Amino acid sequence: MNFEFPLRELPAVMRGPRIERRRVLIGGSAFWGTMQDDTTQLRLDDGRLIDAEQASYLPPVTPSKIIAVHISYSSRSIETRNAPKPTATPTYFMKPTTALNGHRGQILKPADCSYLNYEGEYAVVIGRTCRNATPDEAWDFIEGFCPALDMGLQDFRDTDQGSMLRVKGADTLLPIGPGLVRGVNLFEQTLRTFVNGRIVQQAHIGDETIWGPHYVIADIARHITLLPGDVILMGTPCHSRSVDPGDVVECEITGLGRLMGTVTAIEAPRAAALNVGHAPTDSPEVRRVALGNDSRVAEYLKDNLRAARAQRGHE
Amino acid sequence: MNFEFPLRELPAVMRGPRIERRRVLIGGSAFWGTMQDDTTQLRLDDGRLIDAEQASYLPPVTPSKIIAVHISYSSRSIETRNAPKPTATPTYFMKPTTALNGHRGQILKPADCSYLNYEGEYAVVIGRTCRNATPDEAWDFIEGFCPALDMGLQDFRDTDQGSMLRVKGADTLLPIGPGLVRGVNLFEQTLRTFVNGRIVQQAHIGDETIWGPHYVIADIARHITLLPGDVILMGTPCHSRSVDPGDVVECEITGLGRLMGTVTAIEAPRAAALNVGHAPTDSPEVRRVALGNDSRVAEYLKDNLRAARAQRGHE
Amino acid sequence: MNFEFPLRELPAVMRGPRIERRRVLIGGSAFWGTMQDDTTQLRLDDGRLIDAEQASYLPPVTPSKIIAVHISYSSRSIETRNAPKPTATPTYFMKPTTALNGHRGQILKPADCSYLNYEGEYAVVIGRTCRNATPDEAWDFIEGFCPALDMGLQDFRDTDQGSMLRVKGADTLLPIGPGLVRGVNLFEQTLRTFVNGRIVQQAHIGDETIWGPHYVIADIARHITLLPGDVILMGTPCHSRSVDPGDVVECEITGLGRLMGTVTAIEAPRAAALNVGHAPTDSPEVRRVALGNDSRVAEYLKDNLRAARAQRGHE
Amino acid sequence: MNFEFPLRELPAVMRGPRIERRRVLIGGSAFWGTMQDDTTQLRLDDGRLIDAEQASYLPPVTPSKIIAVHISYSSRSIETRNAPKPTATPTYFMKPTTALNGHRGQILKPADCSYLNYEGEYAVVIGRTCRNATPDEAWDFIEGFCPALDMGLQDFRDTDQGSMLRVKGADTLLPIGPGLVRGVNLFEQTLRTFVNGRIVQQAHIGDETIWGPHYVIADIARHITLLPGDVILMGTPCHSRSVDPGDVVECEITGLGRLMGTVTAIEAPRAAALNVGHAPTDSPEVRRVALGNDSRVAEYLKDNLRAARAQRGHE
Repeated sequence: MNFEFPLRELPAVMRGPRIERRRVLIGGSAFWGTMQDDTTQLRLDDGRLIDAEQASYLPPVTPSKIIAVHISYSSRSIETRNAPKPTATPTYFMKPTTALNGHRGQILKPADCSYLNYEGEYAVVIGRTCRNATPDEAWDFIEGFCPALDMGLQDFRDTDQGSMLRVKGADTLLPIGPGLVRGVNLFEQTLRTFVNGRIVQQAHIGDETIWGPHYVIADIARHITLLPGDVILMGTPCHSRSVDPGDVVECEITGLGRLMGTVTAIEAPRAAALNVGHAPTDSPEVRRVALGNDSRVAEYLKDNLRAARAQRGHE
Repeated sequence: MNFEFPLRELPAVMRGPRIERRRVLIGGSAFWGTMQDDTTQLRLDDGRLIDAEQASYLPPVTPSKIIAVHISYSSRSIETRNAPKPTATPTYFMKPTTALNGHRGQILKPADCSYLNYEGEYAVVIGRTCRNATPDEAWDFIEGFCPALDMGLQDFRDTDQGSMLRVKGADTLLPIGPGLVRGVNLFEQTLRTFVNGRIVQQAHIGDETIWGPHYVIADIARHITLLPGDVILMGTPCHSRSVDPGDVVECEITGLGRLMGTVTAIEAPRAAALNVGHAPTDSPEVRRVALGNDSRVAEYLKDNLRAARAQRGHE
Repeated sequence: MNFEFPLRELPAVMRGPRIERRRVLIGGSAFWGTMQDDTTQLRLDDGRLIDAEQASYLPPVTPSKIIAVHISYSSRSIETRNAPKPTATPTYFMKPTTALNGHRGQILKPADCSYLNYEGEYAVVIGRTCRNATPDEAWDFIEGFCPALDMGLQDFRDTDQGSMLRVKGADTLLPIGPGLVRGVNLFEQTLRTFVNGRIVQQAHIGDETIWGPHYVIADIARHITLLPGDVILMGTPCHSRSVDPGDVVECEITGLGRLMGTVTAIEAPRAAALNVGHAPTDSPEVRRVALGNDSRVAEYLKDNLRAARAQRGHE
Repeated sequence: MNFEFPLRELPAVMRGPRIERRRVLIGGSAFWGTMQDDTTQLRLDDGRLIDAEQASYLPPVTPSKIIAVHISYSSRSIETRNAPKPTATPTYFMKPTTALNGHRGQILKPADCSYLNYEGEYAVVIGRTCRNATPDEAWDFIEGFCPALDMGLQDFRDTDQGSMLRVKGADTLLPIGPGLVRGVNLFEQTLRTFVNGRIVQQAHIGDETIWGPHYVIADIARHITLLPGDVILMGTPCHSRSVDPGDVVECEITGLGRLMGTVTAIEAPRAAALNVGHAPTDSPEVRRVALGNDSRVAEYLKDNLRAARAQRGHE
């Protein structure tokens, strides 16, 4: 966490009671509802009580824009850079809204791509128009939080000069949900990503996040107006890796919920046969990002995270 | 048909080839696709071929407004009025966009209501911003056509002084689809509504429609800007009747497709227990509209429609 | 006020501090800002301080639907009905979103129309998705309030069978603003409409409104989902009358602000020359509504309103 | 131009007659209109004829996303790279829709920034949902073309790792218009950028563009669905340079129109005083891009462009 902007008191959006809103498709209509305390039933606003496990989910957000933090976890910073020190300030990229996907969505992997990586994250959803706020004020503009999977086709890492439009922007590459949650202290939660039920990423948000959402909102809103519904993806911890068709990817954040998606093969685009555009590439740099650098991460985890956790244990 | 504005040539939107676009939810993402010639398979734009029968449908439209013609079929005009002559010009009401529903949707009937009526119709979808057009020009602003069911809770006929907000505006009361079709000569098509598989409404659009979509668009656009995606519901023929939970209602229009919805019971709204708002009413006027006037329609059908059909047969 | 649902405590949206948000166009970009205490300056969110009098205003709302109460003032009820008793429950109609207009807008009057009537109103803006709420709960779904002018082309009163699509739905017929206000006790405010600076309508909202916004929201949301940004127009007091090109119409609500529009002539639509659609009509019924019934209102005002005001004076 | 995808015939969107649609704010309402042949008058859809020079313009587009080509002119490729050869395929970044600005807009330059650069471009506007198209098919998905200014705060070039979110994404940094044009052969047009009336960029689109819009659409739509209204910015020729408050920047494209914006100073964001986020930076790399490399460009222009123009002269 960025210690220059400590919380003086818990912001309203993180104080209870916990409220989780979900949006489902029944027949051909979308309905909003509120999760019941037992977390197995969804009370639709029209009074119907449905089994949350059986529902067909839509994204619980309708943003005008989606902005993502490149790196906001110390473990990810270590893993992806040569220097052991994170950058002094966060950096960002955008995902198009056509990438949105809901809980239990299909995450499409074209036949000519090899490296589709998961990144478990939490998303911040904007509630009110925000421009030119300080970090202290920024909390008031947050509607709530969602689990999210910022999926990426790393085969396109060599192109787009850092914007990652094709790495991160393809249709279906942003599962988000199942619900939009407020009334939970985000900084006490733990994020875990699962592939086929096995934990592949894990981070305590309070211990390991470099910048809080209040800092990020204040940073972006220096120059860019955030509108109600806009989504900010808060970065992923270390151990983003590639998955294959048939794999089930989940992002669980305690207090927020568990989001699931299934990797699904589609054929290569028709324009690929005409050699249109940058071809998916299998380079050393692509492999380095797609397949990761376990030794460096292991070193870091051993030294730093245990210390952080020990410190928290003593607070 | 309004004979003051005959077609000089078939407009482009009614000339072939026939193209049907549908929008489906797979996992948590919406995808557009084009129906294949055999009408059993939908080719998604990303290349996947899916079974059209198994798909989960979204409305194929995202209008900013929905305007409906009160009466545009001579048989309906006869049925609902004392005078045998239709009004000289069409009249309209609005449905909120929250009423939209897709193919195979649930059509909600609250427990405190008794008379949920079907009205099979065709919908016109606007393709380009339109204001101040003549009937001749109006064709160029049409994107395509869809089957639709303009459902109504006739229990609220006694209130809202003719706007029908609560009769026609409740959530789910506008199933539309399965697809958006262009390249079909609308005036050669036949509309049929089915309840549990039995034909309950039938009309030949060219013979029995009083006003064509070009006339209606020119009429509305005298004062109101129509935006891309806006929907105009073109009225229903005679024999709108009430249906009950469990009933399957379908509107089939040859050339356009067959739309289905299922009547589904929900509990009465919570505010009903507090006596908030106009209570659903079972009055003679409500019954007259909900249950219809078969003798008058029978008389009309015998005399007029057979003549019209005979005349068409000789053209 | 509907006495079955008294306020137990002042809802948050009516408690201070007062906040007024406005949206302006500068060059080709829209900007939000907050009015400063002196009410002559608008602080844009990007830090600029501009003269509120010189700004170019956009509507401070972007609704998916606009629902209007037919009659919600006792004086208007008396004026427009034969019975001295208002209807037992409110009734509604819709206006299309293309009718939206901002502060200092031009209110268009086509050359073939004679009776463009003003109706000063307050609008309620929805802040959160609302369905199936009780009146007590409904307050939490309100974002704020705006002055509004529900203008109507009474020449079309004879058509549309009560939906008033063409009376109330034409482009520009809903000036709203200048701002969206929260933190003001609506029930202590007075609404006044001015034509060319002369008061033509006046009503104390707390004394003369029949139904509060909480009741109306609970009523509509029995069957219809209200979405963030949706607008409800709360009806006008007596003395709606016709205005002519060049007239300046204003609706001032103490605590909320003063909205202005100018009646502007445009030519008749091109389709009028082809006799498309219901022609503007000058009938006794049209004149009755457009020009009003002063004697009945005078009677009512003498007997009832003075009593209400006297009673308030003694509270 | 990419010669692998030559035009077999002029696409419909580039065949006459020329139609230019503009969107203006009058009072508080937006109106669409069509430019008259003399180019000094705009015929609003409601029939009014207004002086195009006096109008208040809104962007003629409402995109769900904006995608920009990094480099699509050979002169710009030479200027910004070490290698004399352009990249083999186009690369892209996104601009948020909050950056949109209209003709005669104010282009905001914060007090803590030094290098606000112009980039004159043409924009392509999508007319129909597009995914998985070939370059040949892609033309059918284009609605029309607009002049645009892809403004950038180069002070943030050192951050965001290539996404350029803060360089290109700030509010007001995308003036576009004055209108949306179809019916013009884009490849025969010349783009010129002016600062205070002096030509600062010039390029013949057919001669100097590396990739046509059909290629770019086919490339992006391999993985990303383009929706109606989406905007693609097609890159700028050489000589992007910094401008200062008070400067008037224009982009004129023959056949499309002349777009104007004025650089306007605003104060630094409030969070800057708290050192939130990456500070605007004045580094050698920033200066290299902001101030340009004239000697390399001069060399290129001398050798290559004259040859291209000569060749065209002989065709």
